[in-house]
Amino acid sequence: MEITVNRKAHFNAAHRLHNPQWSNTENQKVFGKCNNPNFHGHNYELVVSVTGPINEDTGYVIDMKELKSIIKEQVEEPFDHKNLNLDTEEFKNLNPTAENIAVVIWDKLRKFLAPALKLKITLYETPRNFVEYSGNES
Amino acid sequence: MEITVNRKAHFNAAHRLHNPQWSNTENQKVFGKCNNPNFHGHNYELVVSVTGPINEDTGYVIDMKELKSIIKEQVEEPFDHKNLNLDTEEFKNLNPTAENIAVVIWDKLRKFLAPALKLKITLYETPRNFVEYSGNES
Amino acid sequence: MEITVNRKAHFNAAHRLHNPQWSNTENQKVFGKCNNPNFHGHNYELVVSVTGPINEDTGYVIDMKELKSIIKEQVEEPFDHKNLNLDTEEFKNLNPTAENIAVVIWDKLRKFLAPALKLKITLYETPRNFVEYSGNES
Amino acid sequence: MEITVNRKAHFNAAHRLHNPQWSNTENQKVFGKCNNPNFHGHNYELVVSVTGPINEDTGYVIDMKELKSIIKEQVEEPFDHKNLNLDTEEFKNLNPTAENIAVVIWDKLRKFLAPALKLKITLYETPRNFVEYSGNES
Amino acid sequence: MEITVNRKAHFNAAHRLHNPQWSNTENQKVFGKCNNPNFHGHNYELVVSVTGPINEDTGYVIDMKELKSIIKEQVEEPFDHKNLNLDTEEFKNLNPTAENIAVVIWDKLRKFLAPALKLKITLYETPRNFVEYSGNES
Amino acid sequence: MEITVNRKAHFNAAHRLHNPQWSNTENQKVFGKCNNPNFHGHNYELVVSVTGPINEDTGYVIDMKELKSIIKEQVEEPFDHKNLNLDTEEFKNLNPTAENIAVVIWDKLRKFLAPALKLKITLYETPRNFVEYSGNES
Repeated sequence: MEITVNRKAHFNAAHRLHNPQWSNTENQKVFGKCNNPNFHGHNYELVVSVTGPINEDTGYVIDMKELKSIIKEQVEEPFDHKNLNLDTEEFKNLNPTAENIAVVIWDKLRKFLAPALKLKITLYETPRNFVEYSGNES
Repeated sequence: MEITVNRKAHFNAAHRLHNPQWSNTENQKVFGKCNNPNFHGHNYELVVSVTGPINEDTGYVIDMKELKSIIKEQVEEPFDHKNLNLDTEEFKNLNPTAENIAVVIWDKLRKFLAPALKLKITLYETPRNFVEYSGNES
Repeated sequence: MEITVNRKAHFNAAHRLHNPQWSNTENQKVFGKCNNPNFHGHNYELVVSVTGPINEDTGYVIDMKELKSIIKEQVEEPFDHKNLNLDTEEFKNLNPTAENIAVVIWDKLRKFLAPALKLKITLYETPRNFVEYSGNES
Repeated sequence: MEITVNRKAHFNAAHRLHNPQWSNTENQKVFGKCNNPNFHGHNYELVVSVTGPINEDTGYVIDMKELKSIIKEQVEEPFDHKNLNLDTEEFKNLNPTAENIAVVIWDKLRKFLAPALKLKITLYETPRNFVEYSGNES
Repeated sequence: MEITVNRKAHFNAAHRLHNPQWSNTENQKVFGKCNNPNFHGHNYELVVSVTGPINEDTGYVIDMKELKSIIKEQVEEPFDHKNLNLDTEEFKNLNPTAENIAVVIWDKLRKFLAPALKLKITLYETPRNFVEYSGNES
Repeated sequence: MEITVNRKAHFNAAHRLHNPQWSNTENQKVFGKCNNPNFHGHNYELVVSVTGPINEDTGYVIDMKELKSIIKEQVEEPFDHKNLNLDTEEFKNLNPTAENIAVVIWDKLRKFLAPALKLKITLYETPRNFVEYSGNES
């Protein structure tokens, strides 16, 4: 019997979509205004979903206070009020699309969860655009 | 490794739930106030979800600008500010329940997506009633 | 010392914007797709705001259960799942713009409230368009 | 061909997280401020999701009016404006975590649905914490 | 030239509406299920609005980090995960209706703001019921 | 008899809070992580509120299509996917706090509205921080 618990968090960041192997014209054509060399930004809303059995003693899948603290340390502190392209190691050589940010967050959080738990990341870049990633473990 | 990208859209439309093979009494009994012969209406909120691998060059599953444009042409323009029963071909002979509208939208959008991509439709009829449809391809 | 209490409600309705004194061309030019002769519709979200002193015995400005019941009887029952142009007396000869609907609701509710209380109506036609009306009593 | 219909509902309740087999110190350590002996409370937002084929005569998976009525009778009436620990049979001996409340609601509603339909419960304890449960029938 | 800055916060609490000078029958009649002697609870959403001129050096009306810290110390810490009737001094002898809670919060915060600034409190008891209070200083 | 019509819009932008007349230490002390020299960003949600009498012929205060078009031209096109500090004239020498952005938007839109109409700007920098500005015309 498995159940999923979800915790929301958020961070505000600047970014620019750009492929350094392409010409400026090609970047402009593919990424449009998201390619602005001076950056733009978003309020990223994050949902971290953890699936597993309910612990009979606590009634919890995982202690939400602990999950909140992992998210704060691994995602909010390194990414909040940052320029993803310039201020983080993860996106120095990786295009910070919503898809890639979700994969990076999944990889960062996965190692803090017990192997038996499943992890899913939902990341809202805007209220109208969001991505979901459940990892590559199946 | 697959990831899902989601795009929200909306349209406002009038509709009436009605089965022409039934008597008025039977229609009234089953559909209640949704059977009003003069129609009523909704702000339909739509989420289009596309699942596939991340393209390494772009960091995208699909270009959101392209997806937004397909949704506009295939869903928003034909359905927005329309009477679904009277103004559209799709619901001339199909009861425009939220379930049937979701299936129609899935069928319309499916043919514009590469076969390797998966498609899911979520349609809010009201903030409290919504449906989800992932097609019949499994 | 005054305080404002607010109660949300909603109704789903069809409508058409049309001025019968104008030609079809003029109506089409001014109201655009809102002039569709077959109607379109909305999920109207309503906020009813009542301002007055706090009753010392109850700690209430007005009993919310009573306010909820007045809104149900005066607004939700006559307007929900209706065609505003065809099914209601109020909009037989009045164009059902959000502005006019808000004024009609204000007029309907005002007479059920004690004269010392102030009334304000907020009406969302869509999540992006809404109107506010505080009456003409000042 | 299956589709999922969803209905939102809500109830407001008080609760306390507590394991009677543990010392007060242990309870305080694990449950923190959620262990307050005088209780605290939440606006629980509930989404009930039912999956099945579309009935060709109605265009429905299930009549939403019927589903709404089952939710009202089985969840809203027994839990709304109640103290889950003191006022309900279900949580007299079961810790009312969001996880356990979701399982209890699933068990209560399951027996009112046709066996061919699938049921999923989503329960928001706060706007930032929520759980999802799809039962143990797979 | 004045501008208003708003900061949202929240707390979860249990409460009971009750007038000790009335009989149980009278309390039950007026407060209905809100009179449950075992309490019920809410996720209170709070908006604190401060109006004043923009400081030319900072571009701020008030430093939001400072306002957030005052709200945390004066409202969130004393009220979050508490039973308002039993655990707080403010509501030992004051019925914790949304109206009275808003007035109490206004009085608590007012003394931490410069006299030239105006203060307004908006308090959501549920997503459908909320109150607004601007004080008695006019 | 006056009524207020409101239109929502949004734009995504990068910005940095900084006073060039201060030392880096002073900027860091006052603006904290908002002073990041590499910028951060937000999804700005904008509500434009226009107050005036209802035109008897149209039932409108102002044509929402026209208002939407002014907002697009004056706010969304110049600010969306831009770095407010680097890409706009308005904030070359003005600190782009939410307060100052709201005043700039008010000044830009005011000149496109008839003098008899009143204008108010509400700007959400994050879901928890927002400002309101009604101009200096009273």
